[in-house]
Amino acid sequence: MTQLQRARHGEVSAELEEIAGVESVAAEDLGRLVAEGSAVIPANPAHRGLRPRGIGRGLRVKVNANLGTSPAQSDLQTELEKLAVALEAGTDTVMDLSTGGDLDAVRAAILERCPLPLGTVPLYEAVVRTMQQRGKTPADLDPELFFEVVERQAEQGVDFMTVHCGVTVRGLELLADERRLAGIVSRGGAFLAAWMLRHRDENPLYERFDELLAIAARHDVTLSLGDGLRPGCLADAGDAAQIEELITQAELIERCQEAGVQVIVEGPGHVPMEQVRAQVELAKSVCRGAPFYVLGPLVTDVAPGYDHISGAIGGALAAWAGADFLCYVTPAEHLGLPSAGDVRAGVIASRIAAHAADIARGRPAAREPDDAMARARLALDWERQRELALDPVLVCERRGPWLSEHGEGEEADLCSMCDRFCAVRTAREAFARASREEGSG
Amino acid sequence: MTQLQRARHGEVSAELEEIAGVESVAAEDLGRLVAEGSAVIPANPAHRGLRPRGIGRGLRVKVNANLGTSPAQSDLQTELEKLAVALEAGTDTVMDLSTGGDLDAVRAAILERCPLPLGTVPLYEAVVRTMQQRGKTPADLDPELFFEVVERQAEQGVDFMTVHCGVTVRGLELLADERRLAGIVSRGGAFLAAWMLRHRDENPLYERFDELLAIAARHDVTLSLGDGLRPGCLADAGDAAQIEELITQAELIERCQEAGVQVIVEGPGHVPMEQVRAQVELAKSVCRGAPFYVLGPLVTDVAPGYDHISGAIGGALAAWAGADFLCYVTPAEHLGLPSAGDVRAGVIASRIAAHAADIARGRPAAREPDDAMARARLALDWERQRELALDPVLVCERRGPWLSEHGEGEEADLCSMCDRFCAVRTAREAFARASREEGSG
Repeated sequence: MTQLQRARHGEVSAELEEIAGVESVAAEDLGRLVAEGSAVIPANPAHRGLRPRGIGRGLRVKVNANLGTSPAQSDLQTELEKLAVALEAGTDTVMDLSTGGDLDAVRAAILERCPLPLGTVPLYEAVVRTMQQRGKTPADLDPELFFEVVERQAEQGVDFMTVHCGVTVRGLELLADERRLAGIVSRGGAFLAAWMLRHRDENPLYERFDELLAIAARHDVTLSLGDGLRPGCLADAGDAAQIEELITQAELIERCQEAGVQVIVEGPGHVPMEQVRAQVELAKSVCRGAPFYVLGPLVTDVAPGYDHISGAIGGALAAWAGADFLCYVTPAEHLGLPSAGDVRAGVIASRIAAHAADIARGRPAAREPDDAMARARLALDWERQRELALDPVLVCERRGPWLSEHGEGEEADLCSMCDRFCAVRTAREAFARASREEGSG
Repeated sequence: MTQLQRARHGEVSAELEEIAGVESVAAEDLGRLVAEGSAVIPANPAHRGLRPRGIGRGLRVKVNANLGTSPAQSDLQTELEKLAVALEAGTDTVMDLSTGGDLDAVRAAILERCPLPLGTVPLYEAVVRTMQQRGKTPADLDPELFFEVVERQAEQGVDFMTVHCGVTVRGLELLADERRLAGIVSRGGAFLAAWMLRHRDENPLYERFDELLAIAARHDVTLSLGDGLRPGCLADAGDAAQIEELITQAELIERCQEAGVQVIVEGPGHVPMEQVRAQVELAKSVCRGAPFYVLGPLVTDVAPGYDHISGAIGGALAAWAGADFLCYVTPAEHLGLPSAGDVRAGVIASRIAAHAADIARGRPAAREPDDAMARARLALDWERQRELALDPVLVCERRGPWLSEHGEGEEADLCSMCDRFCAVRTAREAFARASREEGSG
């Protein structure tokens, strides 16, 4: 039985109980949210050593880090190093988007070392294997191969899979009519569009959705309904093709829930700030509260090299408006495959967005670490500041030069910004003196 | 006459005309905004070679970069290097917050090389000079010295000055009553609080505001009313002490405008996301539309080392809500004095926030560069992408490895993220083929 089916039967699974404890939610409440499809627990029983995470209403906003090889960079060790960095930086889930090297071996190695829910896009493997045959393009994909890949990855222990089932003939027609600026920017969407245009046929992942449901139900794989027609620039945000796909996603969500399959829905992409709330609220309402997973969104297109920052702005807004799950964006986005350093920057940027949104949404006790940081700063207690920081390692690095110069002196608790003109110390001493004088006066 | 006085007389100054041209606003409209105090043109006639900037309603959101020595790092060359980086990264204004070395010489050197409006906090120099005397603290400041410093800096050509005139006895009482978590985190606020508590007297900058106005009017120095009691953590945001200071700032704005002195008002600081809009709208309403200059704001306190990202989230929200001027926050905030690299990261992060907000506010043509970038991406035109990027240098750096490997081959227009599985190319070719078939079929 899937976590959804177990929750419907009122069963408190070990995973549900663990998450309820970590998130300070009553297990009964979490069970109700999972049963109604407002929250999911991606936990493939074949994924050994999994520390489960819950995603959805009533839970802390979660962050995903994308890893994976490409033909140009297919070294396994590099990916494992990036995995270690993503885990250390505090990601909640990991996706392996590999398209280079021995995909099966890479996935097995990552699964073995990843104690967090692992996601994939099985269409990538199906297309990579198709294109390994001379002269073949994505349009030559045999749909049968796709389902084989899904089955194999589910057996391996993949916890959630992005499937671009919402790309339909109707969506492609709208997209062509709209004269979009950036066309299709989703790889999954592009592969399927190529197949559909060649075969003049409907998306096989949509047509044969029941087969997908059967595999997902058997292995408790959570389906993440990818948005293959998502906008690839601000100008395309919220157009008819995007919203048509959302409506199809909503239809598929209902079929997932009927089949007892856990499901989340993926959203954009590139969205100007003023549209973010409306887009999230629309997705939540059309998809009847299913967990919403956004890719960024980026709030400007002119910041390559800094898209983790554009994405943090959009992600914070989206999560505040109700998005449950933020796919990180790294500084490498639009430029190349991320390095380990990019992975760290991407995870932390998304965690900032998620945490700021948890506070804005009024999540109980969300602000506690911030208040503790304020107390540590007032006390000039640097060790405590380091402990409370999202990236304690960086705090150490940056404090290093000051401490090696002043570590033993009375200025050890200051910093190079204000030095002896420290506002905190000045104000603290002035108030202390005033209150002493008042006491004695 | 100040720019404000000239605008009131219907005069189109050279600075106003230049700004109107750059911002595509009718000079007449801009003149009206300056005359009513909704926009300012900080342009001290003694600042030679100034390329003026307008700040306020109807204008692009502007970004400021703080530079300056501290006792620990007082090397002039380092500051000049940071200035060059800030200019190259596209800041709109610069503030020299030096507290170390020969302050007068540092300021003169920066002024000479800074073609943008330059701001200072003259109280810093007054306190530094006070504390250079053995055993003296900020409480020993002679107010006379402060006014001398203001006069001297105005003569030098400083275009705008932060003056913490809004810190009052009443504000300090409220602050003590409130039992704030982080107390006072503004250096100016802390220095004045120390003085006021020692002398059991009102803030001399508030009491003698007319003297300040006289100097500012004489040199057309724009006053930036600092917020010495701004919140230093999320928990303190929007408390009575902060709002009491805002009310005093509003009173002083009226006095500035009566005296023909240009004025902007400074705001927080640290503000949770859900409060940002309300705070900006309150400040705009209480201060009758005066340009609003925010420091961040940071939307979480647990991200030292990444405060440029927290600040970009808060800054984007604030500017969308009506803030006109974003003071950058660098990755060094709360940890030390920024390096040149930090300056670059801070300027770009703030520019992302400002630009995203210009788009969200519906500023005419604001999205044009984004749309151009989308077209360049669809065309896989990397040279054009570089040109349009906020940081073209970084785009070059990141493309380097790919180009040195594939620069001559047919894969030169791809990147290491997707390589031959490029979504853009796949979709483009699929649609082109389909439309050819349609044409011939």
